[in-house]
Amino acid sequence: MKARVTVTLRKGILDPQGKAIEGALKTQGLTGIESVRQGKVFDIELSETLVGTAETLLEEACRKLLANQVVEDFRIEILTEY
Amino acid sequence: MKARVTVTLRKGILDPQGKAIEGALKTQGLTGIESVRQGKVFDIELSETLVGTAETLLEEACRKLLANQVVEDFRIEILTEY
Repeated sequence: MKARVTVTLRKGILDPQGKAIEGALKTQGLTGIESVRQGKVFDIELSETLVGTAETLLEEACRKLLANQVVEDFRIEILTEY
Repeated sequence: MKARVTVTLRKGILDPQGKAIEGALKTQGLTGIESVRQGKVFDIELSETLVGTAETLLEEACRKLLANQVVEDFRIEILTEY
């Protein structure tokens, strides 16, 4: 089974990385970009075949390692192919 | 207009970050995770209102800064809300 976990900063949390990218894009002459916020995406392969069990496992992986729950949200998508 | 750009390593390209995360998850007692590959996601707000123009701008942003095209692929999604 394949899944994608997307981890993004919560709304309202300052994103210095995103601000730096905004500035760099402007320097490159790209106008029209108002804001950029950067996050992480994890493409995960699991030996698990039951969707429910896989989701529980991935939630645990997010809570334990992939997401800093003080400032980040995570979203789990079970995929067939990516 | 809001868009999401997802940048991932090309298939076949070694992902040491992903390997490190795999190991860390196993250490945390999470079994059943076969592989992890990490990528980046950019949530971007544009002042542009035409989808075609926005996509062209975002492609240019990817080619110039957001993606290293030697080893990474990028995907552009125009969103209404995220």
